[in-house]
Amino acid sequence: MRIAYCVKNTFPLRSMHYAPCYSMAEHSVTFNLDETIGTHAQRPSHPVQVPTGTLLTEAAHQAGVEIVQPCGGQGRCGRCAVRVAKGDVRRRSTLRLTAEDVASGYTLACQSVVEGDVSVTVPLQEKIERRLTTDRVVAEVTVPVGYDPRLVQTIQRVTLMLTPPSIDDQTDDWSRLTTALRQHAGIEEVRVSLPLLRRIGSVLREAEWKVTAVFESAIPLRFAPGTIVSNQQHLHRAADAVQVSAIRLIDLRPKETTLFGIAVDIGTTTVSCWLVDLLSGKVMQQAAEYNGQIARGEDVISRIIYASKNGSDIEMQSLVLDTINSLIASACEKAKVDPDNVFKATIAGNSTMMHLLLNIPAASIRLAPFVTAINHVPLLMASDLGLKINPEATIDCLPGVASYVGADITAGVLSSGMEDSEQLTLFMDVGTNGEIVLGSKEWLVTCACSAGPAFEGAGVVNGMRATRGAIEEVWINSDTLEPTYRVIGGAAAKPRGICGSGLISLLSEMFITGVLDKGGNLMPLPSPEAGEGPGVRSRVRPGGHGLEYVVAWAKETWQGKDIVMTHVDVDNLLRAKAAIYAGYSVLADRVGVPLESVERFLIGGSFGKYINVEKAVQIGLLPDLPWERFQFLGNTSIKGAYRALLDCHERQRIAEIAARMTYIELSADNTFYEAFTSALFLPHTDLSKFPAVAEALNKS
Amino acid sequence: MRIAYCVKNTFPLRSMHYAPCYSMAEHSVTFNLDETIGTHAQRPSHPVQVPTGTLLTEAAHQAGVEIVQPCGGQGRCGRCAVRVAKGDVRRRSTLRLTAEDVASGYTLACQSVVEGDVSVTVPLQEKIERRLTTDRVVAEVTVPVGYDPRLVQTIQRVTLMLTPPSIDDQTDDWSRLTTALRQHAGIEEVRVSLPLLRRIGSVLREAEWKVTAVFESAIPLRFAPGTIVSNQQHLHRAADAVQVSAIRLIDLRPKETTLFGIAVDIGTTTVSCWLVDLLSGKVMQQAAEYNGQIARGEDVISRIIYASKNGSDIEMQSLVLDTINSLIASACEKAKVDPDNVFKATIAGNSTMMHLLLNIPAASIRLAPFVTAINHVPLLMASDLGLKINPEATIDCLPGVASYVGADITAGVLSSGMEDSEQLTLFMDVGTNGEIVLGSKEWLVTCACSAGPAFEGAGVVNGMRATRGAIEEVWINSDTLEPTYRVIGGAAAKPRGICGSGLISLLSEMFITGVLDKGGNLMPLPSPEAGEGPGVRSRVRPGGHGLEYVVAWAKETWQGKDIVMTHVDVDNLLRAKAAIYAGYSVLADRVGVPLESVERFLIGGSFGKYINVEKAVQIGLLPDLPWERFQFLGNTSIKGAYRALLDCHERQRIAEIAARMTYIELSADNTFYEAFTSALFLPHTDLSKFPAVAEALNKS
Repeated sequence: MRIAYCVKNTFPLRSMHYAPCYSMAEHSVTFNLDETIGTHAQRPSHPVQVPTGTLLTEAAHQAGVEIVQPCGGQGRCGRCAVRVAKGDVRRRSTLRLTAEDVASGYTLACQSVVEGDVSVTVPLQEKIERRLTTDRVVAEVTVPVGYDPRLVQTIQRVTLMLTPPSIDDQTDDWSRLTTALRQHAGIEEVRVSLPLLRRIGSVLREAEWKVTAVFESAIPLRFAPGTIVSNQQHLHRAADAVQVSAIRLIDLRPKETTLFGIAVDIGTTTVSCWLVDLLSGKVMQQAAEYNGQIARGEDVISRIIYASKNGSDIEMQSLVLDTINSLIASACEKAKVDPDNVFKATIAGNSTMMHLLLNIPAASIRLAPFVTAINHVPLLMASDLGLKINPEATIDCLPGVASYVGADITAGVLSSGMEDSEQLTLFMDVGTNGEIVLGSKEWLVTCACSAGPAFEGAGVVNGMRATRGAIEEVWINSDTLEPTYRVIGGAAAKPRGICGSGLISLLSEMFITGVLDKGGNLMPLPSPEAGEGPGVRSRVRPGGHGLEYVVAWAKETWQGKDIVMTHVDVDNLLRAKAAIYAGYSVLADRVGVPLESVERFLIGGSFGKYINVEKAVQIGLLPDLPWERFQFLGNTSIKGAYRALLDCHERQRIAEIAARMTYIELSADNTFYEAFTSALFLPHTDLSKFPAVAEALNKS
Repeated sequence: MRIAYCVKNTFPLRSMHYAPCYSMAEHSVTFNLDETIGTHAQRPSHPVQVPTGTLLTEAAHQAGVEIVQPCGGQGRCGRCAVRVAKGDVRRRSTLRLTAEDVASGYTLACQSVVEGDVSVTVPLQEKIERRLTTDRVVAEVTVPVGYDPRLVQTIQRVTLMLTPPSIDDQTDDWSRLTTALRQHAGIEEVRVSLPLLRRIGSVLREAEWKVTAVFESAIPLRFAPGTIVSNQQHLHRAADAVQVSAIRLIDLRPKETTLFGIAVDIGTTTVSCWLVDLLSGKVMQQAAEYNGQIARGEDVISRIIYASKNGSDIEMQSLVLDTINSLIASACEKAKVDPDNVFKATIAGNSTMMHLLLNIPAASIRLAPFVTAINHVPLLMASDLGLKINPEATIDCLPGVASYVGADITAGVLSSGMEDSEQLTLFMDVGTNGEIVLGSKEWLVTCACSAGPAFEGAGVVNGMRATRGAIEEVWINSDTLEPTYRVIGGAAAKPRGICGSGLISLLSEMFITGVLDKGGNLMPLPSPEAGEGPGVRSRVRPGGHGLEYVVAWAKETWQGKDIVMTHVDVDNLLRAKAAIYAGYSVLADRVGVPLESVERFLIGGSFGKYINVEKAVQIGLLPDLPWERFQFLGNTSIKGAYRALLDCHERQRIAEIAARMTYIELSADNTFYEAFTSALFLPHTDLSKFPAVAEALNKS
């Protein structure tokens, strides 16, 4: 569905309204980093000279100061606010700044252009923790039963024992090499790159004509382990080899080599990488990190907008490549694997992430009629992208279905097993976007809804990601309305904010205890009499954005400020959960399947992993089904990528899944919008859809 | 045959004997350009700082002064002599320098290492004329009869009329494009590069979904001109298209485009390039230039040695690429063709030239058992090499047979037509090397002999290439022994030296008139009595290298110095002609065919074009056959490349020729050496092999 996007898109994009500046005047811009809160990671900058009309964000970039732009520089989020200490700038927009802010010199860096010498104070930028809490990213994974690389792995190796050239046999090196492969495995064509061709002669001579060839083949060649092939005519064909039309030589080694691969999931928020031993199928290492693009937009739309700016597409590509490369480097180091022995990467991710990775323009994804440039990306080589594994390694970008149903979903469907199941299954991957697939082995339909990043902590005043210091569960006493909470990191960790599962939990508790009415409005509490301490002050109070509920008092928190849930936050969360509910309910409706008949409700994505089902049903995020039908699968995308990396038949199944899935565009008519509006209540306008919740409300 | 090479190779390669220098001391080296003769093209250099042990040639390169190294820096040719004006250098070798030269401070730049501050005077470097005389390079060429690109050309174009995407048809751009091709031509796979994939969306939108696709296919698709294909299901298949398994998209254009290609022949001395209209088959422009690698070695062996030095392989590649790119640029400019519309290049050249072009190590070509790294190079793209045509253009390097029988010969055999002829034909391509093919449509054998560059003017004191000022024919009065000569450029051009045809002519005249005996010794003439002027002085006189014959007196010449033929020159020419004679006679002998039975004797290469057959037979370079059997074909290599560029069936025939040719290694036994020794006479030890010459000698 496009609703939320349409709302966003109708917002005037001020950055597009700039009058062109032809003046050649140059101005000095100095950035002073505000050290008053925390430690600033960046050093004070030298002044930079920029021409009239330069954006402050651009000038800062030139000065080596990175200002976060979670909305991609659209002037929507207000997170790039800086203070002009001296001089003046032209303000295109001051959205999210109060009149007081503006009077104090605050301005949005992404919306302010330089027109004279200026000195700017940059507040401490949100610091992204580089490493995710380990227990949140390491998935349990078992090697597929009976995994045999000879039968299913397209990356293979074979030892070649060649007769050396002589004056009676002046065959060229390349023919000598390929003859051995042709004779013994019925290969018609051996492809090779020019850089590899340049090395072949020296490897053959260094190894005295006994070498290991690593190659990729569409069909596994079924060479038994230790098979040796030769160019001698009298030796017969390797008995176990099958006939293939073409292979691609990836590397030639003087000694036998191990074979590794990596499975990658590029999430809008988190990038995950598994290092896999292709011979045993074992996952050697798992690593995950925030996507380096986050500072350039928190959702895909913001990133597309940012990338569409002149030259920023390359920046976006290198940001995500840096993330992937650092994950690869760290996984290889821990597992003591030479990255040059990584011969294949299988990559899943949503369509926008895939386009940005490949630096293929993603603009058409954002604009009606919402089409991608490409869903089925041809095989590439690591050197095409700059992935730091073997430069000739195969890069297999898994296929997507549509602009908002990408390879993460086709891979997820594979790993969920729903495409092969008799049971009617609903699979939902909730990250920054929500993608939904409904069906069974008979049929598959899919749609997407833009939940937005609210459940990932963005657009919520004290929202944060699920790292140390995040409140992940809240209980409210129905009598006193006092909250109790649990923080990631345990008792030792002071709360810094609230993560997704915490927000769901909090919203549900506020609703069940009457702090919120069914319309999502905060009900003012009578202020308790006199006295000191947090307990005696009112938890519900007026704040900058209307009424707010105090979850943790300043004294308890890491930053020494109250952690609250505001009216605007509730609104954003309701919109997010309504979009998701509307998504799967309309999808079920379109195919004429009542939600109650869904036998399995599978939830993928790290989002779902720590959610309390009861509370998610209470706020109307999940449908009111027996709890045992819900199953949290974790990161289904990387699990699917892992299976495709190991087994060419699984890879083929993903292609078939992509072909089988019928994409339903929710923005095509008004049904979605109506369902969305009806779901903007707790749990829903129509309480009969949530009988268990109705019962709980009656009890409380 | 390897004889001449073996002789060369046994010469100690002094550059390999350097003791490693670990001293970190740095010295200042200044190069002063000697302006006393002619205008120096290079500016005086700034001093450079180099560590102890740096070669003068390397220091000069750093200073931006290029010193020619015709022998590739082996210290063999003496052409890199410079004078040490101040300070001293360590001399590895002083070959070709007299004791007097050394006393005057002369040293070989390629054999001298810096051990202290030094100031060096560089004589005027041989200036290679950039453009060859036009009438010597423009070949007559006719478009093959009935040329129809639909049937034979692998580079094709087709107009695609696509329905634009809509909310009801969200197919991705790439599928939309490929569906049209698949539906209408039964294409199974469309290959594409990532850089092109990045542009597709914008081209489709710019062109409003009507575009021209340029693609390459193994089999021509047979689209009629103006065929329009569409992605609409109801339109049927283009009636004229054939089924192919895969095509490669080269470009996508918003408008219809012309299709051009280039045929290239990389000669050791000369690079030729034809710009061809692939739609009509017409050659639009022909251009030729000296191979930019000449200054780094005049023959293939010297170049391999030079390229094998650290980092010089890239230099060699870029030198020849620069030559090709400048030819392309000039041809395109003259023909008003956008180089981006050049979609294919077909390249012929000997195996060394091909390896150096691709920067594939060529070292194994030079060393026993003389094997190439690769004979059949896979198709490449222009961007792989840096060829300045369309970056996705197909680069087709034609196949070679062996280290010394390359793609220039397979292409030459095709264009000679011998492989399809009933007549027993001997095809010989004489350039710096001599390659010989014998056979008919039934069988083909081939061998190579290293004639060396003597007939191209190298290794001969007054030798030069066939450009303006070269003496191209000489007549000697048998009574007075006074010569008459013809100079390229006509009467207005003063002689500068003697080119290949001039050398053959001169040698023959000297022999017939008795100036030379049959062993190639100059016979001293009685000095005429007293008087002034050239006519009265003896034409045969002692010189620095034994006796010499004066062809032109100082007064007549461009440089104001006598032009002579020395005893050493005669020796070098005899070795060259003996190698060629021994080559084809041994080849004929090996297959048991008497030379007399050769029905056609075809001579390719620019060398042969201006030779007087009678004189070439008289010196024993060509066999004593009826003159009408000889035919000079000019540059057969580029003609073959042109045919392969136009017609995929001709290209296939070249591959078949390469497969059919049996290479005979002449160095495998002593037969060649014996034949070579016997041929070191004028015309041959055994005069009975040259009855017509014997007759002419009797007459004179």
